[in-house]
Amino acid sequence: MIKTPYLLYLGSATDELSIKTSRGLAMFRPDGCVGEFRHDDCPLTLGLPRLGFSDAAKAGAKTLVLGVANAGGRMGAELIADAAAAMEAGLDLASGLHSRLKAEPMLVETAQRTGRTLHDIRDPRPDLPIGTGLRRAGKRLLTVGTDCSVGKMVTTLCLEQEMRRRGVRADFRATGQTGILIAGSGVPLDAVIADFISGAIEQLSPDRHDGGWDLIEGQGSLFHPSFAGVSTGLLHGSQPDALVLCHEPNRPHMRGLPHYSLPSIADTLAENLRVARLTNADVQAVGVALNTSKMEERAARQACDAASDETNLPCTDPFRFGAGPIADRLQAVFTEAAHASIA
Amino acid sequence: MIKTPYLLYLGSATDELSIKTSRGLAMFRPDGCVGEFRHDDCPLTLGLPRLGFSDAAKAGAKTLVLGVANAGGRMGAELIADAAAAMEAGLDLASGLHSRLKAEPMLVETAQRTGRTLHDIRDPRPDLPIGTGLRRAGKRLLTVGTDCSVGKMVTTLCLEQEMRRRGVRADFRATGQTGILIAGSGVPLDAVIADFISGAIEQLSPDRHDGGWDLIEGQGSLFHPSFAGVSTGLLHGSQPDALVLCHEPNRPHMRGLPHYSLPSIADTLAENLRVARLTNADVQAVGVALNTSKMEERAARQACDAASDETNLPCTDPFRFGAGPIADRLQAVFTEAAHASIA
Repeated sequence: MIKTPYLLYLGSATDELSIKTSRGLAMFRPDGCVGEFRHDDCPLTLGLPRLGFSDAAKAGAKTLVLGVANAGGRMGAELIADAAAAMEAGLDLASGLHSRLKAEPMLVETAQRTGRTLHDIRDPRPDLPIGTGLRRAGKRLLTVGTDCSVGKMVTTLCLEQEMRRRGVRADFRATGQTGILIAGSGVPLDAVIADFISGAIEQLSPDRHDGGWDLIEGQGSLFHPSFAGVSTGLLHGSQPDALVLCHEPNRPHMRGLPHYSLPSIADTLAENLRVARLTNADVQAVGVALNTSKMEERAARQACDAASDETNLPCTDPFRFGAGPIADRLQAVFTEAAHASIA
Repeated sequence: MIKTPYLLYLGSATDELSIKTSRGLAMFRPDGCVGEFRHDDCPLTLGLPRLGFSDAAKAGAKTLVLGVANAGGRMGAELIADAAAAMEAGLDLASGLHSRLKAEPMLVETAQRTGRTLHDIRDPRPDLPIGTGLRRAGKRLLTVGTDCSVGKMVTTLCLEQEMRRRGVRADFRATGQTGILIAGSGVPLDAVIADFISGAIEQLSPDRHDGGWDLIEGQGSLFHPSFAGVSTGLLHGSQPDALVLCHEPNRPHMRGLPHYSLPSIADTLAENLRVARLTNADVQAVGVALNTSKMEERAARQACDAASDETNLPCTDPFRFGAGPIADRLQAVFTEAAHASIA
């Protein structure tokens, strides 16, 4: 578990894309972020207080998050020096970079001397089990998609916020790097050895007895020829009671593959339900989430209505219009089911 | 590429199961095995000449294969001493053990001093690509299964033998440890990072322009909740033109999972064809292979007839009755297709 609150590192970044992870944290975990660290040549801001390492520690920060993506995911000399200075000021480090903190002798030495912890969130736990497919107690929802990067993490987080607002116990379960930093723990699924994909998810979302929901962050797509194996193992390991399908309208082709067109929402739902039934015969679809960030509002609402008509499911852009319609359906379906099983 | 011919190491093994890999090599690569090495307390034999390391080297052996499985896959002191002595006699080492040769300082030192090579076949290549789903030239066949360990490797090897006997170019492409030792190269798919499953298979079976077939060793099952992700990525990466379904009749449940029953042959075929169509819309099933090793001959033949009737495909136990019927269908289907495309 990575200690919060965080200080978010922007360093000398000049490119909005390179601070995507930090922005995700500021957006979805504002209470867990006390400030941002940036050099004078950094023109970007997350709208958080600008703090040096000592001031951040005084303000309660426990961990410096290196939520920046350089070319190749490497650590430059400036970043390493900053990271060491942060540890001297009393902060742990968390990084999603491809280069590992633990591979940097200077950081390892500083961490040992100062008693700080290095979190390389791309490293899976060494004790991952093989999946068993055994049913676990509790309820699970998984976001699935027509493609990669269509809003599965954002949808899952918006659902967590909405369900908690309604007084329902619900916990985001992270499977990607940004998600892991937001949640403070999780499984970096893209770094797990193939034989352990479903087992890693079974460990991430174990038995749950408090009546609440695990909301599991989806990855990839059953229709993406590069990553469908990951999506399949994730689906089987999740044993979802409920699926939410995520989609970005007007995407010209599968991400990174101009020779593959997108599947329809209906086909994607049907295929996910079919594959999911292996480990949970009662799986149900409860909604469609569109990422309409590139559309005008009127077109976005029309797209939601059309997807809802096509699927007979509530459809929303959860980030833009709220996750309410999907939460409504989820509560209706599973409250009815609970009543029926009591009666 | 691991150099042949091999000397097969039995050491002091007393358990037939623990020499399964060595036996597979002796059975499917007899021309590539000059002998076996065993201590006086080893009651087992592969029926090969018993040779010491120097005699084996004189007889042409290039590599000592540590095809033994101890509890936990660890290397004992005797095995390490034997392996070092083999290198002194001029042999390379190849091992499928979980413990790595390269993690044993004494073996690393001996290899450096003697100029020998250590092959840890559980280590995937470090340069695996992400799958692209792009069509490649050439024809591919993949064995798929209702479960793990139902005869996919043996079926693939029997098909290779049968097709070569008929003068058709055909090459076994290995995805498991025994298969890799038999072929001399391959991908240890169970050790590949999840994001690279399909890409690893694309690299294993690249463009082929000689009119021959790549016969790809399948793994797992789309219906095995522990490993279906691996099977999915393997299916997508293979882009098979032809599928052969492997099954063991009378198996009580999915391997290792008493709470999961086996799917039917028909359901398994249908699901594999559906998933395979993502990367090759023209995929066809060409046969069913039964592992009837636990059945009387009459019952075995009846089981083959029943499976053939159920699927309208040729069915055989390729190891017991030969792979002829499946090779017949493969040639008929794809010769017809070639004629049709010429006409």
